[in-house]
Amino acid sequence: MLRQQRVVIEGVRPQINCGEFYIKRVVGQRIEVSADVLVDGHDVIAASVLYKHHAERTWREQRMTPGFNDSWNGSFTVEKQGFYEYKVQGWVDHALNWQYGIGRKIADGQHVKSELLEGAEFLEAAKNQASAQENDFLDDLITAFRNPEEYDRSVQEAVSDQLRKILEKYPEKLLQNSSEPLKVYVDRKKALFSTWYEFFPRSSSEEPGRHGTFKDCERLLDRVVEMGFDTLYFPPVHPIGEVNRKGKNNTTTAMNGDVGSCWGIGSKHGGHKDIHPDLGTVDDFKELVAKAKDLGLEVAMDYALQSAPDHPWVKEHSSWFKWRPDGTVQYAENPPKKYQDILPIYFESEDYENLWKECLDILFYWIDCGIQIFRVDNPHTKPYYFWSWIIEQVKAKHPDVIFLAEAFTKPKVMQQLAKQGYTQSYTYFTWRESKHELISYVEELTKTDQAEYMRPNFWPNTPDINPYHLQGANESKFIQRYALAATLSSNIGIYGPVYEYMISEPIEGKEEYLNSEKFQICHYDWSRKNWLIKIITGINKARQNLEALQQTNHIRFCEIQNDEMIAFYKWNEDRSSQVLVVISLDNHHSRQGFVQLPLEELGIAAGQPLVMRDVVPNVEYTWDREWNFVELHPNMPFHIFEINQM
Amino acid sequence: MLRQQRVVIEGVRPQINCGEFYIKRVVGQRIEVSADVLVDGHDVIAASVLYKHHAERTWREQRMTPGFNDSWNGSFTVEKQGFYEYKVQGWVDHALNWQYGIGRKIADGQHVKSELLEGAEFLEAAKNQASAQENDFLDDLITAFRNPEEYDRSVQEAVSDQLRKILEKYPEKLLQNSSEPLKVYVDRKKALFSTWYEFFPRSSSEEPGRHGTFKDCERLLDRVVEMGFDTLYFPPVHPIGEVNRKGKNNTTTAMNGDVGSCWGIGSKHGGHKDIHPDLGTVDDFKELVAKAKDLGLEVAMDYALQSAPDHPWVKEHSSWFKWRPDGTVQYAENPPKKYQDILPIYFESEDYENLWKECLDILFYWIDCGIQIFRVDNPHTKPYYFWSWIIEQVKAKHPDVIFLAEAFTKPKVMQQLAKQGYTQSYTYFTWRESKHELISYVEELTKTDQAEYMRPNFWPNTPDINPYHLQGANESKFIQRYALAATLSSNIGIYGPVYEYMISEPIEGKEEYLNSEKFQICHYDWSRKNWLIKIITGINKARQNLEALQQTNHIRFCEIQNDEMIAFYKWNEDRSSQVLVVISLDNHHSRQGFVQLPLEELGIAAGQPLVMRDVVPNVEYTWDREWNFVELHPNMPFHIFEINQM
Repeated sequence: MLRQQRVVIEGVRPQINCGEFYIKRVVGQRIEVSADVLVDGHDVIAASVLYKHHAERTWREQRMTPGFNDSWNGSFTVEKQGFYEYKVQGWVDHALNWQYGIGRKIADGQHVKSELLEGAEFLEAAKNQASAQENDFLDDLITAFRNPEEYDRSVQEAVSDQLRKILEKYPEKLLQNSSEPLKVYVDRKKALFSTWYEFFPRSSSEEPGRHGTFKDCERLLDRVVEMGFDTLYFPPVHPIGEVNRKGKNNTTTAMNGDVGSCWGIGSKHGGHKDIHPDLGTVDDFKELVAKAKDLGLEVAMDYALQSAPDHPWVKEHSSWFKWRPDGTVQYAENPPKKYQDILPIYFESEDYENLWKECLDILFYWIDCGIQIFRVDNPHTKPYYFWSWIIEQVKAKHPDVIFLAEAFTKPKVMQQLAKQGYTQSYTYFTWRESKHELISYVEELTKTDQAEYMRPNFWPNTPDINPYHLQGANESKFIQRYALAATLSSNIGIYGPVYEYMISEPIEGKEEYLNSEKFQICHYDWSRKNWLIKIITGINKARQNLEALQQTNHIRFCEIQNDEMIAFYKWNEDRSSQVLVVISLDNHHSRQGFVQLPLEELGIAAGQPLVMRDVVPNVEYTWDREWNFVELHPNMPFHIFEINQM
Repeated sequence: MLRQQRVVIEGVRPQINCGEFYIKRVVGQRIEVSADVLVDGHDVIAASVLYKHHAERTWREQRMTPGFNDSWNGSFTVEKQGFYEYKVQGWVDHALNWQYGIGRKIADGQHVKSELLEGAEFLEAAKNQASAQENDFLDDLITAFRNPEEYDRSVQEAVSDQLRKILEKYPEKLLQNSSEPLKVYVDRKKALFSTWYEFFPRSSSEEPGRHGTFKDCERLLDRVVEMGFDTLYFPPVHPIGEVNRKGKNNTTTAMNGDVGSCWGIGSKHGGHKDIHPDLGTVDDFKELVAKAKDLGLEVAMDYALQSAPDHPWVKEHSSWFKWRPDGTVQYAENPPKKYQDILPIYFESEDYENLWKECLDILFYWIDCGIQIFRVDNPHTKPYYFWSWIIEQVKAKHPDVIFLAEAFTKPKVMQQLAKQGYTQSYTYFTWRESKHELISYVEELTKTDQAEYMRPNFWPNTPDINPYHLQGANESKFIQRYALAATLSSNIGIYGPVYEYMISEPIEGKEEYLNSEKFQICHYDWSRKNWLIKIITGINKARQNLEALQQTNHIRFCEIQNDEMIAFYKWNEDRSSQVLVVISLDNHHSRQGFVQLPLEELGIAAGQPLVMRDVVPNVEYTWDREWNFVELHPNMPFHIFEINQM
């Protein structure tokens, strides 16, 4: 193919898997675009980022600036939800090239009559785009350039800044070249900033032993809101299988009265579109969701694609399950382990199209009930392409919907789910404890391509994970882990009230809770207050007030001269909000160290004073040095400093 | 789109610009392919590299093996010139998954009657592909698996290695997935291993002052061959422009009798398809090319797309040049410098299709005269897409043709030309002098993606570059630079006889030769012998004998305890040829140091003796330690050790 373009564009970033996957942003965020833009020879070139919302017809343009080694940089800001496209355009700017050349010749004392005639032609071309006022200016110059009697003035005008700006503004873009369009999906802000609280509705009753209901849950909404959470996540609320039901502490045989695992979905009472009768009705659920919404709290639902043996699907859609040669249905197994209370969905079914459509319909059903956030259970055990399809279908109709992937699995599997479209991802934070582990993990999440497509959600605990470091840990450890999660990541969550009441007794030798709510009803005195709740509330309020903490990727770790202290600087898009966070990793002793301020990034000189407001206790300090002394005690093992210039 | 596949394949390497460009190999080379292959859940998967020559209809297959972190590795060898395609295929291996599961259950003491029935179905499937003998075995097992009376034997057979091998060999590949095909272009071996000698035919005369001819050149062929060169490259041999001709030492006005720059192509005697009358005729040229070929020497021609003002094209195809508003033709300039003896070709011409076709026709013309190697002058000043088009056109008809890009320019421009299809590239070696510079540059060329698409050609000097370190340098420096080039890179060249006679007087302060042959005829006593010629001959012979030196990418630098000594290990594809090279960078003093052998790569233990044959002097040493003493003197500043196990 004969392609006459002269500019080559390559290495456009951000770009995931050669453009197969979209990158992600929320409304108001910026996308920094870079590319290598090359031309043969020595002509002056220019480049732009072109971008548009998918609903727009024309491309918008932001000029790029050249960097080092033929790379060019530009950026644009996304303002609406949905897909945007972006690409890089480059061209030889013959007019600027002319001005550069004539300037060098004039400086060399050469006669440039012929060059002025050439210039007049470039000015004619610019006239097609310029304003009336600019055209008057250009007309005047064109006449002068062509008039030998105005040679001296022409030579002066030819190299003027005024002319350069007009030429820059109205390029001809002959033989321009463009990269292939890439995509970014823009979510609502909550995709990036959310504070989750998880509890089991069945444990919400005030009376020990009674099964909690949605009405009981309504009573707890204020408590959750007062602690500063904005997302309330319930484990599955569907009917629970009665065949092969699990007993307390995961025993294989349920005793009379055992309530079973709520992830064993489906019984004679219905399946994924039904509500467990002991919790209430669908109307109760809708009412709860609406009341929560009135308080600024969104209810997140669990989406767990698996069935109990008595799920209605097993009879109605037997081909959605795998049947063995002996005529029995295939239950879940991880040989030699058997999970006879759970039937995996058979995604390789010949009837997979109807299966997938029904899975989608479940989501639509609950969306109609007011749900816009789904926490997806074990997505890594269902096909990747199923997820990209279903997420795309949902977002096309309901762009506000958020999907959180619960995939505590291998790194590339976790990443792949995010690439396929998940809005947020559980991470390995739960197991990252030391300073080195935390820094290297957060750098991996925020300084590699993962920053473009995977939004971490940091959970210090979950019903499935009672991490060793929390088992029997003191209050300081619980504060420290919450402070780390809540300042390192803008999306976080805890499983309560186990967390704030520091209930951490394990099944011995395992990262499992003893007497786990997964298999039984627990009873709590939900009205009890403690220091940890006060701290969690304070940190959540700081997150609400400080935009720097409402995003994850703008982070830079700072030097601090203590191996058990971690310090980092975070900022929002326009740096109107800047924080320095210092956290002690020692939950037994006081720790002291000097922390280095990132003066260059702050744009200040050493000696210039800063007001550092420690926002949780609300105390102000004035720092005027690069290195500053910090001391942290186990009962208050962190500072969140709001940085303000005096 | 509903895609039912379960395996995801990504990150296939090698891959250049998302498959936009092909990678390169020569006949007999291997391609190591890696990819991330992922599946949902925990099923056993398998993967293959599929590949085929473009003339073949069916894909060949090489199984891949799993590595770390979900990456898989495989390889294949290319046997024919032309394009190959390759891709990665992955699938869930349900049969192996079954065998893994039943094995764990049996080990756990579970009853597996139902699993045996499942297994029988997998064995039935394997029968479709298996041999008659294998089918007898499978039939026997199928019967047993379905016969409760043969339960005990079945349990044993189900987990047998024999069965596993058959299942591995004949996978069902249900719902297999494949990556997009990528391309590799396979050249003849010379693309990777070539030893160039450049001289100016017009300086070939035995009589001082007389213009050399092709007949004179014929007389010099033996000399070039005896020195061990296989490629003889001539600067342009076309008629030289007489308008605005350059004088000696690049003066702007030629004196009477000045021969001009041979890169100022075209005069009343003709253009790019003609021979300078003072050199002889096209028939003389063909005869020279044929005689050289008989001696094992290929003649490489210069392809310089530019014109003298009196090139016939200027009149016949005036639209192939740029005309200024004052009616004059645009000469080359780099403001404020002017090159009035050269007219650039106007690739943006409206008649560009005919222009490009004529440029292609020039190549076909000389190919018909016996030329198969083109050294392209300043390719970076012509459009990139022109090069990809013209190279593709030529190679489609003449796959033996080799293009060397003379682009001493910015890194990404140099790389881009290689990506667009150049077979070989001049490099920055000419200016890489210190140990650190040499190692980091060679690692960049051989350990990054560049290794896949850019074949370096190392030149210690060229007519355009008389590097500062050679100006007035002693013989040891010339030996050292040749030894470095010839052992680090399998493609190399020198501009002679300037190099071997150590003519290095510069234009003061510049990396230019004084009285450069670019602008005048020079006279040499071609029969003179010296130590440097003897060394060059010896090194070239070593290159001919040692396959390890006939490639560039299999290189590993070794520790050597002296900052002015460099050591590296090289090997051929199957490690049947292995060398250790040690070179002193000090051309004034002796240097000593201990060098570390790469024992692990050599596959030997410390204490196991190796015969190290220093091939240029042909002396043998026995080394039986990891660290070995080496001493080099300025008159023989290198060792090329052939490594042989005893």
